[in-house]
Amino acid sequence: MTFRFFLFSVVFINSLYGQKQPVEYVNPFIGTSNFGTTNPGPIAVRGMANVSPFNVAGEQNLPLEKDSRWLSTPYVHENTFLTGFSHVNLSGVGCPELGVILAMPTTGEMETDHLKYGSTYSSEVSEVGYYSNHLDKYDIKMEATATTRVGVSNYTFPKGDSNVLLNLGLGLTNEQGASVKVVSPTEIEGMRSVGSFCYYKPEEAYPVYFVARFSRPAQEFGTWKKPTKYNGVESQWMGYNGKPRLMRGYTKEVIGDSIGAYMRYSFEKPTQLELKIGISYVSIANARENLEKETADRNFDQILKSAKDEWNRYLSKIEVEGGKEEDKIKFYTALYHTLIHPNTLNDVNGDYPKMRTRETLKTDGSRYTVFSLWDTYRNLHQLMSLVYPRQQSNMVKSMLQIYDESGWLPKWELNATETTTMVGDPAGIIIADTYLKGIRDFDIEKAYEAMLKSADQKENNPLRPGIKDYLDKGYLTTKTTNSGSVSTTQEYNITDFAIAQLAKALGNKEDQKRFAKRAISYRNLFDSDINLLRPKNDDGTWLTPYNPESGANFEKNLGFIEGNAWQYTFMVPHDIKGLMKMMGGPKVFANRLQDVFDKNQFDMANEPDIAYPYLFNYVKGQEHRTQQKVSELLETYFKNSPDGLPGNDDTGTMSAWAVFSMMGLYPVTPAEPIYALTKPVFDTITVHLDNKYYKNEKLKIIRSDSMGDNVEIKSIKVDGKPHKGYFISHNDLTNASTLYFEMISY
Amino acid sequence: MTFRFFLFSVVFINSLYGQKQPVEYVNPFIGTSNFGTTNPGPIAVRGMANVSPFNVAGEQNLPLEKDSRWLSTPYVHENTFLTGFSHVNLSGVGCPELGVILAMPTTGEMETDHLKYGSTYSSEVSEVGYYSNHLDKYDIKMEATATTRVGVSNYTFPKGDSNVLLNLGLGLTNEQGASVKVVSPTEIEGMRSVGSFCYYKPEEAYPVYFVARFSRPAQEFGTWKKPTKYNGVESQWMGYNGKPRLMRGYTKEVIGDSIGAYMRYSFEKPTQLELKIGISYVSIANARENLEKETADRNFDQILKSAKDEWNRYLSKIEVEGGKEEDKIKFYTALYHTLIHPNTLNDVNGDYPKMRTRETLKTDGSRYTVFSLWDTYRNLHQLMSLVYPRQQSNMVKSMLQIYDESGWLPKWELNATETTTMVGDPAGIIIADTYLKGIRDFDIEKAYEAMLKSADQKENNPLRPGIKDYLDKGYLTTKTTNSGSVSTTQEYNITDFAIAQLAKALGNKEDQKRFAKRAISYRNLFDSDINLLRPKNDDGTWLTPYNPESGANFEKNLGFIEGNAWQYTFMVPHDIKGLMKMMGGPKVFANRLQDVFDKNQFDMANEPDIAYPYLFNYVKGQEHRTQQKVSELLETYFKNSPDGLPGNDDTGTMSAWAVFSMMGLYPVTPAEPIYALTKPVFDTITVHLDNKYYKNEKLKIIRSDSMGDNVEIKSIKVDGKPHKGYFISHNDLTNASTLYFEMISY
Repeated sequence: MTFRFFLFSVVFINSLYGQKQPVEYVNPFIGTSNFGTTNPGPIAVRGMANVSPFNVAGEQNLPLEKDSRWLSTPYVHENTFLTGFSHVNLSGVGCPELGVILAMPTTGEMETDHLKYGSTYSSEVSEVGYYSNHLDKYDIKMEATATTRVGVSNYTFPKGDSNVLLNLGLGLTNEQGASVKVVSPTEIEGMRSVGSFCYYKPEEAYPVYFVARFSRPAQEFGTWKKPTKYNGVESQWMGYNGKPRLMRGYTKEVIGDSIGAYMRYSFEKPTQLELKIGISYVSIANARENLEKETADRNFDQILKSAKDEWNRYLSKIEVEGGKEEDKIKFYTALYHTLIHPNTLNDVNGDYPKMRTRETLKTDGSRYTVFSLWDTYRNLHQLMSLVYPRQQSNMVKSMLQIYDESGWLPKWELNATETTTMVGDPAGIIIADTYLKGIRDFDIEKAYEAMLKSADQKENNPLRPGIKDYLDKGYLTTKTTNSGSVSTTQEYNITDFAIAQLAKALGNKEDQKRFAKRAISYRNLFDSDINLLRPKNDDGTWLTPYNPESGANFEKNLGFIEGNAWQYTFMVPHDIKGLMKMMGGPKVFANRLQDVFDKNQFDMANEPDIAYPYLFNYVKGQEHRTQQKVSELLETYFKNSPDGLPGNDDTGTMSAWAVFSMMGLYPVTPAEPIYALTKPVFDTITVHLDNKYYKNEKLKIIRSDSMGDNVEIKSIKVDGKPHKGYFISHNDLTNASTLYFEMISY
Repeated sequence: MTFRFFLFSVVFINSLYGQKQPVEYVNPFIGTSNFGTTNPGPIAVRGMANVSPFNVAGEQNLPLEKDSRWLSTPYVHENTFLTGFSHVNLSGVGCPELGVILAMPTTGEMETDHLKYGSTYSSEVSEVGYYSNHLDKYDIKMEATATTRVGVSNYTFPKGDSNVLLNLGLGLTNEQGASVKVVSPTEIEGMRSVGSFCYYKPEEAYPVYFVARFSRPAQEFGTWKKPTKYNGVESQWMGYNGKPRLMRGYTKEVIGDSIGAYMRYSFEKPTQLELKIGISYVSIANARENLEKETADRNFDQILKSAKDEWNRYLSKIEVEGGKEEDKIKFYTALYHTLIHPNTLNDVNGDYPKMRTRETLKTDGSRYTVFSLWDTYRNLHQLMSLVYPRQQSNMVKSMLQIYDESGWLPKWELNATETTTMVGDPAGIIIADTYLKGIRDFDIEKAYEAMLKSADQKENNPLRPGIKDYLDKGYLTTKTTNSGSVSTTQEYNITDFAIAQLAKALGNKEDQKRFAKRAISYRNLFDSDINLLRPKNDDGTWLTPYNPESGANFEKNLGFIEGNAWQYTFMVPHDIKGLMKMMGGPKVFANRLQDVFDKNQFDMANEPDIAYPYLFNYVKGQEHRTQQKVSELLETYFKNSPDGLPGNDDTGTMSAWAVFSMMGLYPVTPAEPIYALTKPVFDTITVHLDNKYYKNEKLKIIRSDSMGDNVEIKSIKVDGKPHKGYFISHNDLTNASTLYFEMISY
């Protein structure tokens, strides 16, 4: 890995006053190991296309090989055997999907088997909007950049015979099927079937279309197909049984599970060739239009400059000064990761596929997709609301489009399919949180109606399975579900709290009361004998025997999904005071919370307990523990290295945690517009607020000095006035010009 | 089987003077057993589309099941288990191909596995342009007809839930892959990959497109897909592994090897539903245009009437009177079979796919396809030249288009691919024969150039493998090829004779001489010790040991393809006198020829010896043997029953043999415009000649009486004048008004 701070080849960033720009601090290799499942390939802000090196196929890559285990990323940093560059990818997800439309430059004879044409690589460089390596086997320099819907590659071939393969069989997805057609010696079009996210709902598989355009006409082109092998008597007549076939000069569609197309050149001297691949989830025509509108008449360097400029504009919404260089890298890389998903689904012309049936609809704004809401309701959307409120507004609108189209708000929406992954009913939390923060340019009545629908519909409710027990008993039982009866009750509680909060804002007192009551029903599952949550059986008795530690490390257990009682008990952000009371008061609460860390039950790599470190702020005098714990976690789990994320980035949720934490803020209670405060890691943090939504254009977060790591907050001032406590409301924050932390050594 | 002579439901044939019309004599069940490989489904004259019942899948159909043996037909008369109706099919071929785009009406719950939804059937009816049966399992009446490019079905459903399945996985072809998309509740479009004819050249697989339109909007629609089964660790996460998936309401393409689409209805009373499926080898848009141009605003009955009318126009070009009713059925069914292939490849708008690369080209006339020339050069094209010269002219033009596009004349062309099936270089024979018969409205210079190319090019000559030895030694050796060194020498000789004949007509004496000499090089392989042809080794010695009978029944042998020395020795139609001389004179020749029959070496089911019965005409005083043998063969091998063809119809070649033979004529020497004469089976045969090419509009072939079977020709008169010998030139025949056979009993 080479992480270039300074760009020699293309100088494009206007480094005013010699200061480094935000994009220069991003290291896209962060998260590419330790199952972070990010990739180092270029992508535009919320881009549909992304050119990722693909190095997870082939036994050379064992043990991190895609078919030998559950692996959900096209790229793993420690792997060495590259078989192409995939053009649609997911970042920070837990299930294999996409990772398709692979382009691969080779030299010499045509070889269509990726296990044979794959290569090791060296001189790897990754920057915002830029990736490059050197393919050892072929002496080819590969460079890539991207616009929103187009992946752009620049290959530098040596003299001689060269090929560009477009492999539509290979992919990270487990879905099969593609079609491809050579349109001309400079263009290939086609589609790839994807779907079955988390090895689930294959009946909702769907196509992704592409148009690939080459800067030079090929001397030869063609397609290939490796058919399914026949067994039985007929196989003896098939000399070609199961073998790949090359179809030279063929200009009609080829269809199949293992197919591809190629362009072949004979270069008299080392030659550069640009490849642009436009993507669309609607049609080939739209993929072509996307390609033309976004990249027409612009070469690689021009597109790269635009990509960097766009990223810089976005990343510069938060400017940081002082602090460690390493922290700046961690910070801007994390911010970068929060701007990847949700990503754009609609084409340049506004077309996007309708949920499930995939009819074509049109949107004025952005139809976003990849809503991994069980993760992102906790902090990512809160970050968007604060720094990129227009995007957040569009995300809510996208959720409402999904409701219009499918009858339900999203849970884990992916490219116009509802994957129904994970649990809970999180969309409403985000909508309420957004609305309560003053971002209101969406149809709140429809949103409220949608929230009530999943909150109240007892039968055939895809968002709240087990809702009957939830409404009748106040909780799900070990009979209701085996995917976390307690944790799902907590999730529903949090959503009900959000509805209550929104009902209050909308003046609906009845609903407010009803849902506020529902929101604390988790209390039925609090076992005061052990001061932890505990599953109940259908008859109301406690699950016995019961080991509260069971469930750590994603171990399957009856009470909690992806966690155990320790990791979930404090996940009642809307009722910390109620929990505290049940536990026996603030002191017991703080000790019990400390136990989570001391007993090594805290899991930084997953969402349920992600806000725990901030809960010390609720206990007067214990706020320093928040500051120490957050600092410690930022140091331990967030690093400027491929394993620099605690685990799966969860479409930016882990990164959003880091961004907030490094700014000294954390949105501790979804749907309650407050932030817990902790010490920022930079001397000055300037947040450029969008005055479409916020009064002040600029919020400065300042800490008094840079005395080192062993400091804690002595006092807090807002616009020069002393601030009481370690929370600040969203309103106070966005109306303020400065949030000042006076630090002292401890 | 019910073969309806009288049509009660739809009266459309204008039976003037109460006489039955030709279409009423056609029994499309003839050839559907005994490996005739015809099918009883409706097809237009030289139609692209054909709705064949498909009953060759599933163990219920063993032993004639498509995957358990080499089976080259979608329908076998003795089979009972029907799994749909395929919309593109080949008739009378020896390799499995096409048999795809299967529609199947069912009732009740949706079932997508053809082995489960298949049904037995009853009340089967087949007529020209019409097929019907009753699906026992579902109580559905199925009827079908066709235009040139559209298959039209009419289903009568009982009350209740009904489905129409479009299965794109199932097929007779061994090629895989399809795409399908529901466009609206009345329309489905897609494509199916086909190719690999004779389990060969899979790299030239190609798409066939379709648009299916339903007369009633479906209440529900969708697609299905059965994905390839995963093995390995991932399969444990796939609850759906290898199982079919139903995608209800899905409106985007689905791609895969085993896919389909369906329309679902709920009928309140028995209801008719029409399904029209337009076909194109160019594009979905063209399939739609074909459908609209050929069937728009016309219902099933109207289309059926047009189909019958068109067939009647064509079949009426030869009118027969007198003779047996059974013979009329045999005759018109045979004539019907000669009008199926070559069939139309181009769309209504003239578009057709270019050879191999499948770029789209345009034609003014008809681009015909399915040129099984090793078969058809012997008689089928001669029949076309005589009765349908415009079609024959278009066939030659199509061959020249193929030359333009691929650089070579066709050998066994199928839907714009050259399958390179069988041996020899037969296209030139047909071109010369056509030209010498006065059909000259094509580019003879280009044709001649094309013929010389394959005749002379020593390297990389796909039409004449082994040409080097052929030119150097005069023959192919057992080293040159293991697919018939003698027989291929004979094939090249016949083509060289054709070139010599054409050179003569074009005034090119040098070529005439050169090729006339080449044309008799087979003589080197005549072993006068055994009075039979015999393979030679590379060193010029005879293949030893040698059993001239080896090779019968398609047994593989070094000298002859699909035959043995007996079946090939007389296959020198252009040099019968030379052969006679080598054998020791006419008497020895006649006895040796008689030996073929007496020793049971004659094979009526394959082409090499198909003209043998006519060779007695070359020996003065032995002509009665021709008459007797031809009569006997017509009686023995051609019947009004499913097994009523001697074997594979070879795209109409066997049927053309019957048509000519029953007319009392046979084009015994390809590229020499003469006919051998034998006794006709009807009292009067009126051939309506096309006066674009021929002087007389009407040729009457008359025999003196109907004294029964045991008659022979006493004398022959042409326009009242005595005719010498048992041959007549094409010129004399087409200038004559009557050809009169005076018969006597023997």
